[in-house]
Amino acid sequence: MNLQAILHIPKSNYAYPVSGLDFRVRLRAGRGDLDSVRLVIGNQYLWETREEFPMEKLGSDGLFDYYQYEYHCTDTRLGYYFLLKKGEEELIYTENGFLEPGSVDIDHDRIGFVHFQFPFINGIDVHKKPSWVNSAVFYQIFPERFCNGDPSLSPETVCQWGGKPDRMNFFGGDLPGVIQKLPYLSELGVNALYLTPIFEASTNHKYDTNDYTRIDPHFGDESTLVELVQKAHERGIRIMLDGVFNHCGFFFRQFQDVLKHGEKSPYRDWFHIKSFPVTLDPPNFDGFAIGPYMPKFNTENREVMEYLLGAVAKWTRTGIDGWRLDVADEVDAHFWREFRKTVRGINPDAVIIGENWWNAEPWLRGDQFDGVMNYAVQRASVLYFAEDRIGPKKFEESLTENLVRYTDQANDCMLNLLDSHDTARFLNTCGGEAGRLKNAAVFQYTFVGMPCTYYGTEIGMTGGNDPDCRRTFDWEESHWNREMFEFYQKLMALRKGQKALQYGTVRFCSAGEVFAMERSCGEDTLVTVVNNTDGEQEFVLPGNRALDLLSGAGYTGEAGKIRLKLPAFSSVILKKETVQ
Amino acid sequence: MNLQAILHIPKSNYAYPVSGLDFRVRLRAGRGDLDSVRLVIGNQYLWETREEFPMEKLGSDGLFDYYQYEYHCTDTRLGYYFLLKKGEEELIYTENGFLEPGSVDIDHDRIGFVHFQFPFINGIDVHKKPSWVNSAVFYQIFPERFCNGDPSLSPETVCQWGGKPDRMNFFGGDLPGVIQKLPYLSELGVNALYLTPIFEASTNHKYDTNDYTRIDPHFGDESTLVELVQKAHERGIRIMLDGVFNHCGFFFRQFQDVLKHGEKSPYRDWFHIKSFPVTLDPPNFDGFAIGPYMPKFNTENREVMEYLLGAVAKWTRTGIDGWRLDVADEVDAHFWREFRKTVRGINPDAVIIGENWWNAEPWLRGDQFDGVMNYAVQRASVLYFAEDRIGPKKFEESLTENLVRYTDQANDCMLNLLDSHDTARFLNTCGGEAGRLKNAAVFQYTFVGMPCTYYGTEIGMTGGNDPDCRRTFDWEESHWNREMFEFYQKLMALRKGQKALQYGTVRFCSAGEVFAMERSCGEDTLVTVVNNTDGEQEFVLPGNRALDLLSGAGYTGEAGKIRLKLPAFSSVILKKETVQ
Repeated sequence: MNLQAILHIPKSNYAYPVSGLDFRVRLRAGRGDLDSVRLVIGNQYLWETREEFPMEKLGSDGLFDYYQYEYHCTDTRLGYYFLLKKGEEELIYTENGFLEPGSVDIDHDRIGFVHFQFPFINGIDVHKKPSWVNSAVFYQIFPERFCNGDPSLSPETVCQWGGKPDRMNFFGGDLPGVIQKLPYLSELGVNALYLTPIFEASTNHKYDTNDYTRIDPHFGDESTLVELVQKAHERGIRIMLDGVFNHCGFFFRQFQDVLKHGEKSPYRDWFHIKSFPVTLDPPNFDGFAIGPYMPKFNTENREVMEYLLGAVAKWTRTGIDGWRLDVADEVDAHFWREFRKTVRGINPDAVIIGENWWNAEPWLRGDQFDGVMNYAVQRASVLYFAEDRIGPKKFEESLTENLVRYTDQANDCMLNLLDSHDTARFLNTCGGEAGRLKNAAVFQYTFVGMPCTYYGTEIGMTGGNDPDCRRTFDWEESHWNREMFEFYQKLMALRKGQKALQYGTVRFCSAGEVFAMERSCGEDTLVTVVNNTDGEQEFVLPGNRALDLLSGAGYTGEAGKIRLKLPAFSSVILKKETVQ
Repeated sequence: MNLQAILHIPKSNYAYPVSGLDFRVRLRAGRGDLDSVRLVIGNQYLWETREEFPMEKLGSDGLFDYYQYEYHCTDTRLGYYFLLKKGEEELIYTENGFLEPGSVDIDHDRIGFVHFQFPFINGIDVHKKPSWVNSAVFYQIFPERFCNGDPSLSPETVCQWGGKPDRMNFFGGDLPGVIQKLPYLSELGVNALYLTPIFEASTNHKYDTNDYTRIDPHFGDESTLVELVQKAHERGIRIMLDGVFNHCGFFFRQFQDVLKHGEKSPYRDWFHIKSFPVTLDPPNFDGFAIGPYMPKFNTENREVMEYLLGAVAKWTRTGIDGWRLDVADEVDAHFWREFRKTVRGINPDAVIIGENWWNAEPWLRGDQFDGVMNYAVQRASVLYFAEDRIGPKKFEESLTENLVRYTDQANDCMLNLLDSHDTARFLNTCGGEAGRLKNAAVFQYTFVGMPCTYYGTEIGMTGGNDPDCRRTFDWEESHWNREMFEFYQKLMALRKGQKALQYGTVRFCSAGEVFAMERSCGEDTLVTVVNNTDGEQEFVLPGNRALDLLSGAGYTGEAGKIRLKLPAFSSVILKKETVQ
């Protein structure tokens, strides 16, 4: 047995309550090393009533197998250990290390229990995800480029719609434009919008907020937002705003006051200023990245927290459904805990999504965010679907590693994207090969977490890295890739209609050059099968009958096996049917 | 290279700021597997300025080697990875797994950085330990049994001092008794007291608080506590109280109100009551362990939190220096974070110690406790010093595993005990063999963390498991083990006098049957050497001259080696001297 590969961390993503008395336990072991893992678990004060359960292998990555058991507790105080088996070899794995089976320490250790424990499930510490995330279909809008609904709001220097975006120019998109296009979004099938920042700022991207209490006048005003929220809600579309609380814009009044009055400014402690007078080149204060133009907030300062959370409360009260948080990993945890209390106090069903590009586990324990922008899976999708740098097995491993990194609540709240305002458009990354994008989208809409499509992807929009990925939406329908639009319509409808895609367990079953992923919920089993190669591929699925929910084609098996022939760059989403 | 053994967890006890710009990075690898580990670290926004440092091996346990580097940052935003070397084999370890050296991904991954990161060191999230913990010498008092300073306070049913303790009886110890014995405690050398609960309760142990706002009338009143704090402080002795916030006593007024008025009681939501009417046998509410006599608080209820934290604030304002928290692991984290804010808001230098018998890492991240009662090391001490169930190497491994489990701030705040009101007395566990206790004490007073001696150990008090370990202190000096008293005096004086014991790094260097541990601070190096066998043992220490701080004996080396002969069950604490 490879003892060095075995890992369990109590009170972590390896042992956590999901809700009520639904408790998940995970164990990591060396890949292919163990024959079986059994979980022995019970009330730690009634230890003699403990029970034994077989753990299921969730999946594997390059080095490890991951096991899980979903335990339905009868009590809130848990003790547990693992029974590991490999051939004739058996060991017990406890917090105190590995013991021989039958060790007296398990029952009556004279100097204290040796098992792992979850001392008490306190409801307030359980990560509660919003009720609607499992069926959410998100669409990301960069408001300055989506639709110009009210030209009277546009900046004086506005460029011709359709022009080439650069770092500084404006095209006049606004909130009235979003309102105007709600019927379009409904037709597409979206039920949640993520708007990049809409508060008063200098730039076209608005990540440099100058006034947190005002809507940017080029986008509309408070009543425009209220109207948007109301009209979107009438269509069952939720609204998530983008909050930039790590830093402000250079022209934020309080920062300008510090520039002007230095040490005498009442706002001198609102930022991370290292000495006075303040200098800009080089800056002697912390900012976003290394420049002086977006001064970092001192969120430890009570006044700053009250100012920012006051604005958060104000906008949350308009009825919005959540927040995406910019540069979320550089702001202190203390601030985020207060942020969560503020938002959830007003709207207990609001979602909170961090912009975290790296491992975000410390932020996803239930006290800060619900999920993050899933750049880890986005990167893996680029490597597999767009660039052929990895194959389906390696892609599977990467997905498995990401799923076990977080709790299942957090996994359900991941914002799964293929691209965003901060990356090249996926179609560009694919070298324009639409089949690759469609394959990636099939995966995205059938994987665990909330799919989020960047505006215009559905009509075949292209664009390289920022600022080129921020082009204006072309509302001339004759220019659209209509097939792509219908494809996205289908995916969105499937996501909203199939319980297995929303709540199903996920298991990978790729074979050869074909990626395959099964999602099961009750009687329903859906299997996503993707051929991301330029040749035909065969895939064998156990079963007798299946229906491709994308094409409507039916498949019949022989001797319990359905043989699929997948053309180059194509996917199916098969619903298994039980033959009467 | 055993890749499956390698572990690093970002933003955890494997990567954390200690204070200011002092940052610790740890890595785990298979025991004996790697030749060297180097840390490559820098500002993630100025990644090209990164530097490379060799990591030092901290120690090993049965399966793993642990490496550490203490990095002095110049910036608060860190990115890093590891360079692993074994023979000719070299690998880079990143958040995205293992890469070949020279991989282009390290410098310019086209789709995102691959290194580990600590996004920003926010001061408010850094665990700040109290200024005094490194020189603390704690003494645990069970007030009902320490000294009866005012017989007029004693319960009517008081038994004769010196009688046999049972679960229910009283002996009349009180706070005036503690005040009266402060000169004794000063003479012994104690500089901090941990008092088990002193608030109004029914039992002799007072873990069943009935009124959190009153001192137990058998112990004194508020002015007695104020007098104790003041007189102790005059002697440089700090006071830590015991708070029981998991549950209350059966006669807690608000619980009695629920028993009486059921659903109509305004306190119905103060507890975890599953149905009405309330039943006692079996109880239909959560309590401490499985009985009905100590109802568990619903600390999620704002009113409960306000009531308890109101009491916490009141007592913290008397000038006490900290809290020990009973059944700390069963109370929600949300409550503990508010508790910490309340206590530290009043006394920024107060210590917070949890009663956690298992892995307490989730409570020791800086937002809840400073340390815990170190039962893990207590258990290992019993196994090695008292029961010969493990040898020095296994003991070392257990200590190493415990040290890397937590941050160094938390390690400095561990309450290191050999026994307590909840265990048999250590001398009993040793079968009365004083040499074993003395060896264990030498270890305890020279290890990392705050030594805490259970009242009476210093005079040779004995007692089996609870309630026998709670006997009355025998103030008849002729009954004392005077040698033991002087031994403890010496240990306490050493702990308070030697910087290396307070702030030194710790490295283990056991050999054969001898346990040895080196602590170094600047020029000072102290080596604890313990022979816990019943025969003489030899130990070779590199060096030319050393002084045993316990006996005053000097040792001289030959050819750079000092050869020690240690009698059965004996220890030395050697201070290495540099020969001019």
